[in-house]
Amino acid sequence: MYPTIAKPGESIFDLSTPLPVIDEARLAANIARVQSYMDASGLKFRPHIKTHKIPSVARLQVEAGAEGINCQKITEAEVFADAGFDDILITYNILGPEKLDRLAALNARISGLKVVADSAVTIAGLASRFANEKPLTVLVECDTGGGRCGVQTPQEAAELAAMIAAGNGLDFGGLMTYPRAKSEAAVEAFFSATIALVVKNGLTCAIVSNGGTPSLFDAHLVPSATEHRAGTYVYNDRSMIRAGHCGLDDCAMHILATVVSRPTADRAIIDTGSKALASDLLGFADHGLIVEYPDAVIAGLSEEHGTVDLSKCAGRRPQIGEKIRIVPNHTCVVSNLFDAMTFHRDGVVTRVETVAARGRVW
Amino acid sequence: MYPTIAKPGESIFDLSTPLPVIDEARLAANIARVQSYMDASGLKFRPHIKTHKIPSVARLQVEAGAEGINCQKITEAEVFADAGFDDILITYNILGPEKLDRLAALNARISGLKVVADSAVTIAGLASRFANEKPLTVLVECDTGGGRCGVQTPQEAAELAAMIAAGNGLDFGGLMTYPRAKSEAAVEAFFSATIALVVKNGLTCAIVSNGGTPSLFDAHLVPSATEHRAGTYVYNDRSMIRAGHCGLDDCAMHILATVVSRPTADRAIIDTGSKALASDLLGFADHGLIVEYPDAVIAGLSEEHGTVDLSKCAGRRPQIGEKIRIVPNHTCVVSNLFDAMTFHRDGVVTRVETVAARGRVW
Repeated sequence: MYPTIAKPGESIFDLSTPLPVIDEARLAANIARVQSYMDASGLKFRPHIKTHKIPSVARLQVEAGAEGINCQKITEAEVFADAGFDDILITYNILGPEKLDRLAALNARISGLKVVADSAVTIAGLASRFANEKPLTVLVECDTGGGRCGVQTPQEAAELAAMIAAGNGLDFGGLMTYPRAKSEAAVEAFFSATIALVVKNGLTCAIVSNGGTPSLFDAHLVPSATEHRAGTYVYNDRSMIRAGHCGLDDCAMHILATVVSRPTADRAIIDTGSKALASDLLGFADHGLIVEYPDAVIAGLSEEHGTVDLSKCAGRRPQIGEKIRIVPNHTCVVSNLFDAMTFHRDGVVTRVETVAARGRVW
Repeated sequence: MYPTIAKPGESIFDLSTPLPVIDEARLAANIARVQSYMDASGLKFRPHIKTHKIPSVARLQVEAGAEGINCQKITEAEVFADAGFDDILITYNILGPEKLDRLAALNARISGLKVVADSAVTIAGLASRFANEKPLTVLVECDTGGGRCGVQTPQEAAELAAMIAAGNGLDFGGLMTYPRAKSEAAVEAFFSATIALVVKNGLTCAIVSNGGTPSLFDAHLVPSATEHRAGTYVYNDRSMIRAGHCGLDDCAMHILATVVSRPTADRAIIDTGSKALASDLLGFADHGLIVEYPDAVIAGLSEEHGTVDLSKCAGRRPQIGEKIRIVPNHTCVVSNLFDAMTFHRDGVVTRVETVAARGRVW
């Protein structure tokens, strides 16, 4: 009754659309390229599973040499713990009794759970819940210029480190940041200043965790870091091409779409709307790159339609019924829209994987 | 192991976030208000289920007087046929053998299936598949200024109507449009001109279907229409407030969020990112309205974080751990992110419904 996604051996161009597909060769190359850089740089690597939310993809990342994984929410971490992953860093402030209970249950069953905190409120909540439990490792999140979570100064970071170390059921684990791209000097300055203060207090930063895909290949410019986290690199997307991280041929995810209408000479309507491509602009004015028609502009999305402006297309224009491939602006949000992901090699389906942590946003 | 969403009788403010919740009283009032307008206007009403994707909500809409439902994709229609709905209009060009087979199977098991077409290619595909089947009813989609799908002129519409009527397994069912808001005169002009041509050819437009929530209460200004379709009205959202369709107190959907960080005096970080609120801007520069802090601006979203600018907040500012309610820019895409929807009355959970057609984008 419900959609038959795909079967191994089928051509991806025979599949009903819209459908995201992953190129196995590009996936493997992306994993190998980044792991090899991290190895050469003496950095441990911790892939962020938010991009794929699929345990078997994380398995490929760990088999290539990653030390563990990064999750953003507890419910994601639960899915990956179920799948056998043991070294999990949740880079999120965990607050509230329901989440603290889940965290304690998760900490009881895996050995390498770690979380972050950026406030006395978060630390107090953790300390209160873990006082009579197996201790939880907590890192201090630092805002090194990213402008999201994190303490603002090395002094604050050192104070929170001391607070964690003084907590009954808590172990101080080190530092973590999610930086702006190309801000390696600022990250290093923040980290090194904090480490000096923390060491003066008799503590050790066992983990110093830097992150992000866009300037990943500059991770070695942060010598204080012991590890790097990145998610998007595994599939790559249009925003990573623009950031200079990769080329078009490194994008492992395409969304297959069908042209469903050609109302005018300059307009094509495709069957991928915001419920297939997501609406993330990430600074772009349009909604993805059509591989077969690079001069076509996906000018607008409604939920199940994409409106494509063909006015700049020289030569052939797409016809009704024609299938096209789209490189999305942002791959991570596309993964979160689909229950299953179809993998292929040279256009032939290899496997269909459940996106096991899809929708796990708690 | 996985999220316990909510249980009847719990306070919504005790639930783990992020979590979308639906106010039962506002939901009922939205359904009653629009149905009552349609009844008074002599228009049949066909709610679009894309907004909620939940059969029991569509049941409320039909019990209030709606004649049938509107789906955008076959896989949505399959879910609602399974739930017992019989009068379903799929407002989409159906192309390709896999979808045509699904459509034939669906047409064989419900009596009121209807689809639209806006090209000879789509009609030829339908005619070829249904030649030896129970006939399928097909409406012609008209672009009355919306700039998405649809034929451009009444002449083209009449030609396609004749083509459908000549198709072996096809019945011509009438006309359909998805118009721009506040373009009732243009819609009426297109419809009436097309009807005149179609009638001259000896055909009848049994259904003339207009649509859209933003200027829904002007639907009576299109006298040629026999029915109106609308989805968003059932929950409403920030874009519908701006369109003048409703007020803040008519918004039935809120996304519950928790403040997880207060890195600076002017910045709060909440646990709703693009994977909970979606990134649809719909002309706004920010990402939703915080009920408790209307002067706060959700300035940016990453996947699991919302960055809130508090600089314009006079008086009290949100604290770490505090729960807030967000009216999203666009409710329909939020529904598509969550496997379950929590309903409440005065803040007390009444029921949790599976979003049965979530992710059905084929």
